[in-house]
Amino acid sequence: MISSRAQIIPRYAETDQMGFVAHASYLPWLEIGRAGLLKEHKMDYRQFQAEGYWMPVLEFGLTFHQPAHYDDALVIVTILANRPSFRIRLDYEIKRDETLLATGFTVQGFVNRLQRPVRPPANFLAALDLHFPRTKETSAIR
Amino acid sequence: MISSRAQIIPRYAETDQMGFVAHASYLPWLEIGRAGLLKEHKMDYRQFQAEGYWMPVLEFGLTFHQPAHYDDALVIVTILANRPSFRIRLDYEIKRDETLLATGFTVQGFVNRLQRPVRPPANFLAALDLHFPRTKETSAIR
Amino acid sequence: MISSRAQIIPRYAETDQMGFVAHASYLPWLEIGRAGLLKEHKMDYRQFQAEGYWMPVLEFGLTFHQPAHYDDALVIVTILANRPSFRIRLDYEIKRDETLLATGFTVQGFVNRLQRPVRPPANFLAALDLHFPRTKETSAIR
Amino acid sequence: MISSRAQIIPRYAETDQMGFVAHASYLPWLEIGRAGLLKEHKMDYRQFQAEGYWMPVLEFGLTFHQPAHYDDALVIVTILANRPSFRIRLDYEIKRDETLLATGFTVQGFVNRLQRPVRPPANFLAALDLHFPRTKETSAIR
Repeated sequence: MISSRAQIIPRYAETDQMGFVAHASYLPWLEIGRAGLLKEHKMDYRQFQAEGYWMPVLEFGLTFHQPAHYDDALVIVTILANRPSFRIRLDYEIKRDETLLATGFTVQGFVNRLQRPVRPPANFLAALDLHFPRTKETSAIR
Repeated sequence: MISSRAQIIPRYAETDQMGFVAHASYLPWLEIGRAGLLKEHKMDYRQFQAEGYWMPVLEFGLTFHQPAHYDDALVIVTILANRPSFRIRLDYEIKRDETLLATGFTVQGFVNRLQRPVRPPANFLAALDLHFPRTKETSAIR
Repeated sequence: MISSRAQIIPRYAETDQMGFVAHASYLPWLEIGRAGLLKEHKMDYRQFQAEGYWMPVLEFGLTFHQPAHYDDALVIVTILANRPSFRIRLDYEIKRDETLLATGFTVQGFVNRLQRPVRPPANFLAALDLHFPRTKETSAIR
Repeated sequence: MISSRAQIIPRYAETDQMGFVAHASYLPWLEIGRAGLLKEHKMDYRQFQAEGYWMPVLEFGLTFHQPAHYDDALVIVTILANRPSFRIRLDYEIKRDETLLATGFTVQGFVNRLQRPVRPPANFLAALDLHFPRTKETSAIR
């Protein structure tokens, strides 16, 4: 398992008239969380794109426990629990100090510029090897 | 079951650099879908708010099958499959002609201005009575 | 002068915690206004893009007179007052019935896929000819 | 004159299909810039709100010189050039290293919860006194 922490301060534009952060505003935070996780583990999404790989989000979900406010000091914990194969599932916890405000997940795949699903880039797989022992099953997709 | 159809044309600002509509851009469309469903069935969210009720989103999820593009002619089908009690679950289909692009759901609750969960407003329940036969179980929350 | 009217109903996600539509939410409406103006006058931005032209916004401004609310029935009036040459200036009025809520403008240019400024596409100029008599000066840029 | 610097890394959701940061995405960055300027000079917008003051944006403008990209390291320089009276004008520079990407401004006023224009709160005026010598003219609005 690898994980990463990103700090977020909700913007005024991210609130809505209920007086809290709007539910859709959390999604760009998840993207900040996973970009941080990738960078800290030698996987750079900007680099993947330069090499012709996109990582579209195929599925996501969020569950809210407590509201977040403008200017709160929040932390996004991003977790890669299992070695991904063709699809990458990430889990997220949004916290204010020790209070869990929301939990979520995203599923992404790799596609090429023609939007065809492709194997992950070599440097992505190499970085994973450092963190997840390869099994017979995961070796198969190399 | 009651349902509603809303037409959506993706805005340029809703795309991202992959060249498609960004995954987070679908969430405001779901809100348009459910506002339409409520209005068409004599339940007006603006009126609920004026009476002191909010309907925060407690959970949501989306799964993507095909990308949507700037200026596509899309339809959001919003479905209330079962009579809600304290929580309202809505399901959504996002289509371009007969092609299903994405499916999703939201769960909302009613809260008062102090953010305490409350029973739905009387006119909401009355409108539901027109569409969903009340059972012993659902009568209990009146 | 040519102009166009587009109808807008503010989304919940477009409000902020002051209880009104947030100031940044108006900008995507201006884009809807100008896309409508172009289409109604035989100029389709989607087609321009397919031909390799982009129209980046180079400048914009907005002034607010009255707030807009969630679910208001608004109209965006988009005005092309003068025949554009290399730069296209559009003016906008945002109204609720006869009340003027905001006024704004945008300036855009045409660029090619390498982001180099270029002459407008031929069908853009042809469409302009129908609405603006060409003078010696504007003929020069053909 | 007082000023403040805020660091911004453009989010993926802030790009559009032209491949750059969308023009509307800069506005929330200006809000981050001014919130930073206020905090660093003993004026906290969150506190103003708790005391019943809002600061709606009455006018804004932006001019773009160079595009910004996903994941760039940007700086927003926020400048309060003159002591504000009833209206607060702030100027902004958006830079990537020494390259000026965009310049902008906002004008805000103070209103109370009934949306009536009001004098700025006492701690706002007191903080200004530290940075701007009061003249006869500006004293008048105390």
